[in-house]
Parts: sequence; structure tokens; C-alpha cells
Amino acid sequence: MKKYNICVVGATGLVGGEMLQTLKKRNFPVNKIKALATKKSAGTQIKFGSDIITVEEITPESFNDIDIALFSGGEVASEEYAAVAVEKGCIVIDNSAAFRMDTDVPLVVPEVNPHAVDLHKGIIANPNCSTIQMVVALKPIYDAAGIKRVVVSTYQSVSGTGKAAADELYEQTGAILSEKQFSAAVYPHQIAFNLIPQIGSFGDDGYSSEEKKMILETQKIFADDNIKISPTTVRVPVKRGHCEAVNIETRTKISAKDVKKLLENKPGIIVTDVPSDSVYPMPLTCESRDEVFIGRIREDLSVENGINMWVVSDNLLKGAALNAVQIAELLLERGLV
Amino acid sequence: MKKYNICVVGATGLVGGEMLQTLKKRNFPVNKIKALATKKSAGTQIKFGSDIITVEEITPESFNDIDIALFSGGEVASEEYAAVAVEKGCIVIDNSAAFRMDTDVPLVVPEVNPHAVDLHKGIIANPNCSTIQMVVALKPIYDAAGIKRVVVSTYQSVSGTGKAAADELYEQTGAILSEKQFSAAVYPHQIAFNLIPQIGSFGDDGYSSEEKKMILETQKIFADDNIKISPTTVRVPVKRGHCEAVNIETRTKISAKDVKKLLENKPGIIVTDVPSDSVYPMPLTCESRDEVFIGRIREDLSVENGINMWVVSDNLLKGAALNAVQIAELLLERGLV
Repeated sequence: MKKYNICVVGATGLVGGEMLQTLKKRNFPVNKIKALATKKSAGTQIKFGSDIITVEEITPESFNDIDIALFSGGEVASEEYAAVAVEKGCIVIDNSAAFRMDTDVPLVVPEVNPHAVDLHKGIIANPNCSTIQMVVALKPIYDAAGIKRVVVSTYQSVSGTGKAAADELYEQTGAILSEKQFSAAVYPHQIAFNLIPQIGSFGDDGYSSEEKKMILETQKIFADDNIKISPTTVRVPVKRGHCEAVNIETRTKISAKDVKKLLENKPGIIVTDVPSDSVYPMPLTCESRDEVFIGRIREDLSVENGINMWVVSDNLLKGAALNAVQIAELLLERGLV
Repeated sequence: MKKYNICVVGATGLVGGEMLQTLKKRNFPVNKIKALATKKSAGTQIKFGSDIITVEEITPESFNDIDIALFSGGEVASEEYAAVAVEKGCIVIDNSAAFRMDTDVPLVVPEVNPHAVDLHKGIIANPNCSTIQMVVALKPIYDAAGIKRVVVSTYQSVSGTGKAAADELYEQTGAILSEKQFSAAVYPHQIAFNLIPQIGSFGDDGYSSEEKKMILETQKIFADDNIKISPTTVRVPVKRGHCEAVNIETRTKISAKDVKKLLENKPGIIVTDVPSDSVYPMPLTCESRDEVFIGRIREDLSVENGINMWVVSDNLLKGAALNAVQIAELLLERGLV
């Protein structure tokens, strides 16, 4: 089997670290692995499975011998280096928001629009975490009954913001329990024992950038501007795992029982739905798991064709690193690299 | 001014304690105050403003000289003693779910349906916490543009479950931070750094008792079965204050600007809505406050007549104790006691 030279940009970040672990865990055919970061982090020793590798400073030359570059260093790094990497012959799978809405950049969730990778021109974008888990859950319903409108409220963990945010949650929490002073640096407000209804920055229409991503990325992934999405995104004091209360208005009637049956047979989805036994997905039980977990599936009696469900997934895995590695696998499967 | 003999049933609970403090804070014309609880708690010293009063064991005779009895001892206590209290000539304001849906029991939120108290036959029910803050926020919109349908996702704090739950959140959190063992007793799962999409017990239709309360109580309070409500209720690791992402489909078009203007002028509501400055309601900033706080007011572009907003209130105050005391005030205002 052919093996590939892979690099991870932003290797010292939470998602970068998970990208390395995911490549190893899924036995991705890696010939050479390179962990890249800014000068500040160069020299850091990090894990690649049970191996330890040394982080290198990113430069244009970093990409010389690379086949696939997984970018998770934020928008600035992507803007600075993605085009350079493509010029050097890499295929870039970019986890940042830098290119997601570019018309010539496919935005791919392998369970939903695998064919979209075929049209890539060097860069393939990985969608936003909150979008990915939602579209995986929506896809079987979309195919079976059509989707007119989705009202979604998110409950997003701090790891979506990065390491500093996860540390801040624990530091603030510890300070509160021991009645010590503390500050808020990563978020505009205290996150410990609190909720912040802001993810990203706000536009004039009152929607946050995270909310706009959920609308626009979903429409792009489904290649259907007629799916209307009404999102509210909220940060919660949870370390890892995003939850979404998803209300779906379908085009034709579908029962909760049929939705359950549909979802149970889909790869990448685990239905966890015995509420009378207190069985439903939670961040705690979905942490470090690959799948999108769906529970609380029930008919919405407030509208003619309505379904409610509760969708949980690990935002660092399916919401980021795993989906990126799955895109790389898709490139191999489809003979694109 | 006439003064009244008041008792609080369940005085040692979180809501009971807030009822006593609220009576004092609002200078309710109290002649005699009596704090009642089960035998186990009798003799406990508790606060009534800056006074200390002694909790008495509840018996049928407890109500002999009482004008208004505020019940917050749970459904069992209400079922056992409310009728007894009424027989003895008390007016009962009951915070439990025991009588809320009874046709001859008014279910009252003073900002929404004050007139409903007039028809009382001895018992007036205080609605569920998550219902109260939502209907206060909906009422001005209902009057201005009509309401067809509401999709609501809640983010409910542990104090809604009581003292033991608030203690459990802190104990579990402390144990996790110090890497010690811990257990879950109050909730079916760990609540620290986790979310539980279950409040109450589940029916065959997949909805929880809390979700059903939000549907049925809202329709009863508005006396309008045509308001359709689609709720998802979730417990979050926050001590005090419930949040709700509320999506409203109105009957006629209303702009976000007009909704904001409407809400700003209503008693009991504070609009906190400058998202670009990270100004929006949060549990942290609404704790121990009387009002319903509303922010993130924006048009929902996924439907013809849609509004999204974020509604936060202290579940122990407007969601329970304060609303009950306001009902008592209403009885005085309307000459019903």
C-alpha cells in the first residue's frame, strides 16, 4: 500500500494533537509525519500514537515533501501558508474558517457530501464543529423526508476555543470553590458555573459568527440554499463535547420511530435513546468517541411535520480532527492523491 | 394598612427561604409569620429578613389563624395540606405542580394573567420556573403580533432541583478538580462539567414532565390552546438562574427593533442587549435579581414572521418565590383577601 507524507500545522493545539492521534489510531498510511507550529512551540515533544515527535517551526519549505497537509493553526496560519503548501504540491485540509465559503473550496463532511472532494483545487475545508455534528444527524432525514427548516440551540464546550479556555474553566472553578480571586481572560465573562450566549463576534443582524457558520456551511454542504437554519449558539461550562437541541421541520411527514430506524443504520451515528431509563447522549459519555450520538428523538407536535432531537459529539474529534482525517481517507479512496 | 397572617410551607427549602426573604424585602404587610416544615426540620432557626424565626412542624392546626399560605414543600405536602388550609379559611398559593392544571385552580403570572386570580376557589397555583420567565417574555409580543409557535431550549440550573442538587454540583466539581471519587445521588448522572437532557420523568411521547409543563402551563396562562410550544429542557452545571433560547413565530410581522422597544417598557422585564459589547443576560448577572432579563433579540430569517431571543431569570425568585409573593400582592390589590 502506498504511504504518504503528512504534516499537521498547529500540532501543539488541542485539535492538532487529536489529528496526530487520529491518524495513528485509524492506521492512516503515513510514510513521514511532520508536526508544525510557530517558532515559539518549535522543539516541543508531542505524541504521535506511542511515538514522540519533535515540533518544527513552520516555514514555506516545510511543505516541500508533503502530500497532505492538515491545517489546524487558526485562520492566520491558514491564510499565510495554505496557498504556499498547495503551490508545493500538497493537498491542504483546512480546519480553519479561512476558506470554507470560497466557491472553489469544497466543504466536506464524508457522511454527507463525499463527492464534493472531487472538485478540489488544492484546498478542502473542514466545517465548523457545531455544523459537522448537526449535518451528520440531518443527512438521513434530509434524504428521507426533505428539510424545510431547522431551529437549533447549541451547548458548546470550552475545548472548542482551545487549551487556554479549558484551563480557564478549571482555574476559575477551582478559585470559586476555594473562594479565591480569579479573572476572565479567554472569554469576555466568567465561564465557570455560568453560560455565555456568545460564540465568535456579532454582526449587525444580531447573529454571531458561529451562528452564521451554522447557517451558511449547512447550506453549502447540502448544496441547498432552501434549508433554513435558525441557530442560537451558547458556551457552557463543559470541557469537551458539544450538544445541540435540534428542531427539524421536514417537507414530508416522518415519524419519530422512522427517524430512529433511519439513524440507527447510518455509519458515524450512534442512537442512544431510552429516555425512560435516563439513556441519552451527554458530553460525559461522548467524550473521546468518534461518532455523532443522537437521542431524545420525538415528534414535534407544534408543527405539521416536525422532529426534535438531541445531538452530541466530541467537538475535537468528529467536530474537527476526525473529520479532517476522514477527508484525507476520502482522498485516498477516490484516488485523488 | 391591614396586615395578614402568612405561613410558608417548606420553609427550609431553597424556594421557601426565598419566599420569606421576598415577603420582607417587598414589605408585604405581614402581621404574623409562620415557617412550616416536616417534623425533621422543626426547631430549625431560619431568616426572615434580619429576624430569626423557628420552624414549626406542619399539622392541620398550623393553618388555623393564617390568611395566606405559601406552599413550597413539594407535591406531596401540597396534596396533603392545601385542602386542609383552604378549609380553615386560608388562601393557598401553591408552588408545586399538584394543582396547576386543575380547571378550578387559576395558574397566575401577574404580568400575564392577573385577572385569573379573581376566579380562585381557595388555591392559586404558581407556574413552573421555566414557564414563568418564558411567558413574561412572550406576553408583550403576544399582545402586539400574536404567537403561533415557540421552539424553546432551556439551560436550567441545579437550584431548580433544590439544595441537595446545588450541593451535589459543588461536591462533584470539587472531587473532579482534586481527582477524588464521587457519586451521583440527586441526578441520574454526573452534573459537574456535564449536561443532562432530562428534567423530570419521560412520557411515552418522549417528552419530559418539565417539557409538558412548558406546553400546557403556557397555554393555560394565555388561555389560548393555539399557542404551540416545542420545548427541550436541559440541566446545566450552573447553580442559579435558568436560561432559555426562545424562537417565536408570530402571527403578524414584527421587527427585532419593535420587539426590543416593546419589551423595554414592560414592568418585570429588563432588556440587556448590546451583543457587540458582549452585553447579554447570563445566569451570573441575573442571580438574585427580580426581573426577567432578555437579550440577543433578533429576527429569525428562516421563517416569515420570526424572532429569536435569549431569556434569563433567577429560577428561585421570578421562577418561584417572587411570583408567589406577587400573587399574594395581587390578592390584596384586588381585594380578594
